Amino acid sequence: MGILRLGYLHVRVTDMAEARRHYVETMGLKVTAEEEGKIYLKGWDEWDHHSVVLEEGGVGVNKLGFKVNSVDDLTSFENRARAFGATVERMSKGENLEVGEGFRVISPSGHTVELYADITYLGSEVGFTNPYPFPRHQVGISVPALDHMLIMAEDVALNEKFFMDVFDFYAVEQIRPEYDSPARIATWLSIGQKAHDLAIVAGKDKGLHHFAFRLDDWSKILHAADIFSMDDVSIDITPTRHGITRGETIYFFDPAGNRNETFAGGYTAYPDRPTVIWTPDQLGRGIFSHSRELNTAFTEVYT
Amino acid sequence: MGILRLGYLHVRVTDMAEARRHYVETMGLKVTAEEEGKIYLKGWDEWDHHSVVLEEGGVGVNKLGFKVNSVDDLTSFENRARAFGATVERMSKGENLEVGEGFRVISPSGHTVELYADITYLGSEVGFTNPYPFPRHQVGISVPALDHMLIMAEDVALNEKFFMDVFDFYAVEQIRPEYDSPARIATWLSIGQKAHDLAIVAGKDKGLHHFAFRLDDWSKILHAADIFSMDDVSIDITPTRHGITRGETIYFFDPAGNRNETFAGGYTAYPDRPTVIWTPDQLGRGIFSHSRELNTAFTEVYT
Amino acid sequence: MGILRLGYLHVRVTDMAEARRHYVETMGLKVTAEEEGKIYLKGWDEWDHHSVVLEEGGVGVNKLGFKVNSVDDLTSFENRARAFGATVERMSKGENLEVGEGFRVISPSGHTVELYADITYLGSEVGFTNPYPFPRHQVGISVPALDHMLIMAEDVALNEKFFMDVFDFYAVEQIRPEYDSPARIATWLSIGQKAHDLAIVAGKDKGLHHFAFRLDDWSKILHAADIFSMDDVSIDITPTRHGITRGETIYFFDPAGNRNETFAGGYTAYPDRPTVIWTPDQLGRGIFSHSRELNTAFTEVYT
Amino acid sequence: MGILRLGYLHVRVTDMAEARRHYVETMGLKVTAEEEGKIYLKGWDEWDHHSVVLEEGGVGVNKLGFKVNSVDDLTSFENRARAFGATVERMSKGENLEVGEGFRVISPSGHTVELYADITYLGSEVGFTNPYPFPRHQVGISVPALDHMLIMAEDVALNEKFFMDVFDFYAVEQIRPEYDSPARIATWLSIGQKAHDLAIVAGKDKGLHHFAFRLDDWSKILHAADIFSMDDVSIDITPTRHGITRGETIYFFDPAGNRNETFAGGYTAYPDRPTVIWTPDQLGRGIFSHSRELNTAFTEVYT
Repeated sequence: MGILRLGYLHVRVTDMAEARRHYVETMGLKVTAEEEGKIYLKGWDEWDHHSVVLEEGGVGVNKLGFKVNSVDDLTSFENRARAFGATVERMSKGENLEVGEGFRVISPSGHTVELYADITYLGSEVGFTNPYPFPRHQVGISVPALDHMLIMAEDVALNEKFFMDVFDFYAVEQIRPEYDSPARIATWLSIGQKAHDLAIVAGKDKGLHHFAFRLDDWSKILHAADIFSMDDVSIDITPTRHGITRGETIYFFDPAGNRNETFAGGYTAYPDRPTVIWTPDQLGRGIFSHSRELNTAFTEVYT
Repeated sequence: MGILRLGYLHVRVTDMAEARRHYVETMGLKVTAEEEGKIYLKGWDEWDHHSVVLEEGGVGVNKLGFKVNSVDDLTSFENRARAFGATVERMSKGENLEVGEGFRVISPSGHTVELYADITYLGSEVGFTNPYPFPRHQVGISVPALDHMLIMAEDVALNEKFFMDVFDFYAVEQIRPEYDSPARIATWLSIGQKAHDLAIVAGKDKGLHHFAFRLDDWSKILHAADIFSMDDVSIDITPTRHGITRGETIYFFDPAGNRNETFAGGYTAYPDRPTVIWTPDQLGRGIFSHSRELNTAFTEVYT
Repeated sequence: MGILRLGYLHVRVTDMAEARRHYVETMGLKVTAEEEGKIYLKGWDEWDHHSVVLEEGGVGVNKLGFKVNSVDDLTSFENRARAFGATVERMSKGENLEVGEGFRVISPSGHTVELYADITYLGSEVGFTNPYPFPRHQVGISVPALDHMLIMAEDVALNEKFFMDVFDFYAVEQIRPEYDSPARIATWLSIGQKAHDLAIVAGKDKGLHHFAFRLDDWSKILHAADIFSMDDVSIDITPTRHGITRGETIYFFDPAGNRNETFAGGYTAYPDRPTVIWTPDQLGRGIFSHSRELNTAFTEVYT
Repeated sequence: MGILRLGYLHVRVTDMAEARRHYVETMGLKVTAEEEGKIYLKGWDEWDHHSVVLEEGGVGVNKLGFKVNSVDDLTSFENRARAFGATVERMSKGENLEVGEGFRVISPSGHTVELYADITYLGSEVGFTNPYPFPRHQVGISVPALDHMLIMAEDVALNEKFFMDVFDFYAVEQIRPEYDSPARIATWLSIGQKAHDLAIVAGKDKGLHHFAFRLDDWSKILHAADIFSMDDVSIDITPTRHGITRGETIYFFDPAGNRNETFAGGYTAYPDRPTVIWTPDQLGRGIFSHSRELNTAFTEVYT
């Protein structure tokens, strides 16, 4: 089965108290563990020990982790990563709190990517026996789960190839300089049936453009924007629709300056669905379907 | 009972064919009559002969009409308008196509305002016997009805007084330079229970900021923005919420450059509801609840 | 201006603790006062002292109150009520907690109806200075306000006439035994621009069919039904649309057995809007637009 | 990668003209081919030649087809089906219009299941180059795609085992007679990340409970119910939420009596998500989250 999902990411924040207020009180994540300079968080609909780890000091992403279906998958992926020529190292159980053994690979874009099969199971807030559809008491916008992330890379095509060849991602949508070009301005990769699990956009290596949390639908997007206003969250892009993925979205910043997204909608992706290709003349509409304008702050500001 | 609603407005457009495409194909209004240089339009849920009249030549509003409950109301209002010191003239039946007698008054802001009690009844598209909630076949975003308009005035307080004293509007929300100031930066006036029927904002006399059409809810706002994107409508402000009125909105321009709005939500207004007062430090949030930023293009561009 | 709205209703409940849990924890009303055997409640968006009063003992409605715009209106209405031949008595300040003087009239249907102009002002939860669109922390389904009620009457036509002739309600929709019949099976009356403030349906005099709280839109209707499921509220009619008023609705019971409704949507009513007439063959669709079936439990069960 | 999705189903209808009106005018499917006694249909967001095939004569399902990722997968699945002891036969290219070679297997429940890798590509209505999020002109409720189906089986556990062991489905939710029982009253199986691709409920072998089309969200569910009312579609279950899958739903019948569903929402399923277990005491809420009542017509009526 291979990779299940983007399991976790470790993100740097400048002020832990402010970050906690944002991710817990506004976003509605739950604290599952704390260490010196680290807070571990999960959404109410996630069962694994954590999905977001806040690390004190600066801004940007330290690493991301993909959960695979079984320990057997790890060996196969590790071999393929080495075959690709990537730098790989083994990761022992406990190196990451509550996370089992696995391996660590540096993507061509310089991002640290960890692969693991085991992580302590905590269960979801509604449980798995005769559950209700959501928790009776919700905090802030009550995001159920981490959804996807978008990283920056100087060579998008190479990194797309890396994630496709080594980890079996497939390209759902792409921005190409010309329709038939092998070059990529950006690519949206799925590992399952979500419209994207990982996106890569041209920019500085190691950069984090944003990471996104799932919301149910457009009505929840409005509610989130209203709560952000009340909590004085810095909104980057007010509620709108993406042309790419068709998703409904808000972009905003955590107090450290990391861009977050709330994402709803989108279609069911399949490997046999033709890759959607966007050309630069329609790029504005591809990014934001309503304004249809390129917003340089959106593309050039990241952490 | 007095004034029922903003019954019609006559708006100038530069290119009649383009305007027709916008108001008919995209907005979903129906043509009810045509004359040399004029097209009469109504929404599917309106029963009077027309609510929007397109007049060839330029941009901006030529006049607006308020429908009153009975011919008796006309005399009373006319007397009060004269008492206020406004320029008033009688309007005979047929001066406006399908509209009965009434009178015409110039507001302090220089806007031509017509009052009338009778207009040819056409009926709504779903009818009034065992009706369905909306037409089975809809065109574009299928606006049901004209909702309100916002005009510019050099002296907002004076014009507020005019509409309150002469026509019984009451102030639902106001922007004041200071909390206790008698001056007004803007005012939102209701003649019934809608959060506003007429708003007045500081700017050049005779100016039209926008006129708005009703939509059912936030999901229809998204649909409208999606259709606008497909029809290449120039969107000024993408889907968001107003702080003032709480309404959900999109601002956009017709091909001539007149600003339109689609408006959903808002609360039920009552004369005993305290007037909401906005102060300049919170004005950005008052206008657009999510971005919380003053947008000079929004406040300074009008027709 | 006359009547502003259905200001309050006093409803009997069998178990005060259960009723409190329902109206406070699930519905989200706030307790504004308590007396022996009485709890006074208001919604977050209401400014008057109370809108719902729970009275211990039994089930059904004890009385309803309409707020008028000014004390002057009271005298006029009282005279018209007497002229109609109704039993009228003066009501002194303080007879109702925090409510000013007024009068009490018995409708032909035997309902006790109080008219008043003054009630202690408490203000809304979001306030009227630079307000947010809703409270940051919400309880249960967080209803903003009481919306309307539906009472039973043996002679609907007579009661319709009473409320129209004495209090200036107008008929927005009617169910008639035949299209041209002067008889009424049911009538929906508005006193302003809401699709209804008071409805009257054929049944036993003094009966209460339901009272309704406002919700913003269809997404809030789903949320309410989900919370009702979690709180084990007895749902009578799951989310659907009314043909009559076009409103989106849930019907459910409080623990005593009084039917409640959450109501969203509906159109803007006007006195010059033709009265919608429903005939018996389309009645099922008139009541519930999706099932299109008469549900005898719905029409025959009331308190 | 194995099975991609429920690719098609062939359903019997009694009157082709009525069925065509239902599936084309109301549901919004497009006719892609016609043969004597057969109509081939697809949704606007599907790219393969067809997903629903109407076959004249009676009611119920004739067969269903799962599309696999590659021809290589076919051999593997065929061997596993034979190893399970199922009756298998090869299927040659062209046996099904526009469908490539594959094999046919009879499930323990007696359903004819076809596996294929190739089917003529037609493309979607919005295309895959700079696409808009949906077609500008929509017909009826404009379903984008077939989503899942629910079949009846006398031995649910055996059929669950069949689809899991032979085709790699995994159980997302189950109704069990007791929490720890190996028996199954019903099971919801996913082959990817949708909350279900195939469900099996206790009943007569070969039975079809319903097949479902995707809708975007709860607002589209309301719109669908409104259109069904206008088109006089027989609605079985008005808009509500499932406890199982959390999906938002309407059940209704095509003119022949086959139950259809429109389905929105639901969560992202993963193989490592614990299987949700429902016990009979909470079954009513599991099926319909709002009414929380077992509806025997719903469970016992199928084709």
